[in-house]
Amino acid sequence: MNTPLPDPPTLACIRNAAARIAPFAHVTPVLGSASLDRLAGATLFFKAEHLQRVGAFKFRGACNAVFSLDAARAARGVVTQSSGNHGAAIALACKLRGIGATVVVPRNAPQVKLAAIRDFGARIVPCDASQHDRDRVTAQVLAETRGELIHPFDDPRVIAGQGTAALELLHQAAALDVIVVPVSGGGLLSGTLLAVKALNPAIEVFGAEPEGAADAWQSLRQRRRITDMSPDTICDGLRAQLSERTFSILSDRCDGILLASDDEVRTAMRLLFERMKQVVEPSGALALAVVLRERERFAGRRVGIVLSGGNLDHSAVSAAPGHG
Amino acid sequence: MNTPLPDPPTLACIRNAAARIAPFAHVTPVLGSASLDRLAGATLFFKAEHLQRVGAFKFRGACNAVFSLDAARAARGVVTQSSGNHGAAIALACKLRGIGATVVVPRNAPQVKLAAIRDFGARIVPCDASQHDRDRVTAQVLAETRGELIHPFDDPRVIAGQGTAALELLHQAAALDVIVVPVSGGGLLSGTLLAVKALNPAIEVFGAEPEGAADAWQSLRQRRRITDMSPDTICDGLRAQLSERTFSILSDRCDGILLASDDEVRTAMRLLFERMKQVVEPSGALALAVVLRERERFAGRRVGIVLSGGNLDHSAVSAAPGHG
Repeated sequence: MNTPLPDPPTLACIRNAAARIAPFAHVTPVLGSASLDRLAGATLFFKAEHLQRVGAFKFRGACNAVFSLDAARAARGVVTQSSGNHGAAIALACKLRGIGATVVVPRNAPQVKLAAIRDFGARIVPCDASQHDRDRVTAQVLAETRGELIHPFDDPRVIAGQGTAALELLHQAAALDVIVVPVSGGGLLSGTLLAVKALNPAIEVFGAEPEGAADAWQSLRQRRRITDMSPDTICDGLRAQLSERTFSILSDRCDGILLASDDEVRTAMRLLFERMKQVVEPSGALALAVVLRERERFAGRRVGIVLSGGNLDHSAVSAAPGHG
Repeated sequence: MNTPLPDPPTLACIRNAAARIAPFAHVTPVLGSASLDRLAGATLFFKAEHLQRVGAFKFRGACNAVFSLDAARAARGVVTQSSGNHGAAIALACKLRGIGATVVVPRNAPQVKLAAIRDFGARIVPCDASQHDRDRVTAQVLAETRGELIHPFDDPRVIAGQGTAALELLHQAAALDVIVVPVSGGGLLSGTLLAVKALNPAIEVFGAEPEGAADAWQSLRQRRRITDMSPDTICDGLRAQLSERTFSILSDRCDGILLASDDEVRTAMRLLFERMKQVVEPSGALALAVVLRERERFAGRRVGIVLSGGNLDHSAVSAAPGHG
């Protein structure tokens, strides 16, 4: 049997996750840019999770969850649902462990992310885009395979894994005043909050959310979980909604959710492309977008920004950086 | 008076250059990619000079030359000719030293590189694209200003500065078997050869050149300097020809020049974009293109590849990575 994890995960869980994934995950570099510092009026530390394996931080949580399974559970394989990066991350982690993976994928997922899942040898089962249909098809697959469900964010093993990015960042960039990470389902933000607030509660932690998918922002304002919003944003990685678990972690610890428009996200992508030569997907550029929008809030401070992913669909390239 | 430098520069000159530019230049990271290693059948170490200041290795040579000047010469300012990155590098180095810079730029230079030169406060003087007209206008400006000419590659101070990238790479990536760098005028290749062959002559060093501008390849084959070729390539940073100085350094030390087509360069750019999330200009992707073309030569070896620059013109973005 697996030992049950504390829920929410503790700092010790996050440290264990860091040790568990160390043989497989990259310690991603922290990048800087004098010209973006001037633009923001702050000192920016970019945690380059787009250079993580599968091109996104999601590999951390997936890898921790897959390698946490005992042998009997692992043998039945893993099932997940994902619009992209988490699916590829599960596929790679299962390949590394030598076990089967099934990924339930909405039909509107970016082609580049689908191709990655397939390349790592996972079985793909299509579903409709609605959360309802995702859940329905996932339950079907679980009943068939008796596999282990590893949810993209509503899972303490995944949250602990995502928290390892912040652990690394705090070691790599001294004396940060504030950290900004994108929020969708809330796995990365939860892991970041649990790591950072345990180590140094004086460091502010903000979530960055698209204006067109601002359910976390609304949920924290209204102190109740909003689950009926229809996302409309180019940030294809950020269309999920908080779970009870992540809502509770955010409610207790988060310093706030900050918003940016799709145009501000496009500008941030272009700046990362031109000034830092980095290819970052819309969700990955969102944290920079909010820092540039709320210039006064961050002025003169040392700001950690998580570039969460780099899997830009080809069709998005001509529409995004370097155009307009 | 300036102390005259040994010509060609020695390993000591390159080490002095490294110390001189250390307060201003970045020690650029060395990046890797498991998926590109599989594709090449070799272990690749990418020296990320597209993350150097001004987005290209050219800052090393320019910075070394500008900070080598004594006060009296520096006061008269610096003059150079450049289709782009060297011009921006001279402009920034002069700005850092607080002296004037004039850059003679062919009218067909990429807009993004022109903008960088202007942003760093240099004066731009346009000329025609031919080497003859570049030289004519440069001579005019020199006569007017009595400034110091810093040639983009035919200058021992510049060559010593470019050699510092290889010094760093040898420290960052242990036990390299071979290093590949792009060649145009031959400044980077000369500096690389002088550093690497002095430290470990067993390491092979190849130049990478576009098929459509293969004058260095022809020159080494024919053992005489070819100066009458008309370049036709998307590698806009690689349209110059060897000088007597760089031809002589290459003739004595270089293990060979390897060619790639423009299509192979586009493929290399796309791979760097998709697999490594790095924005690299055509010239910067050329060394990877030849390594993938000559797979047998590099199979099983530890290969250093210099990503020389990342200043992609906007108009080139839609034509290059992620398209086709």
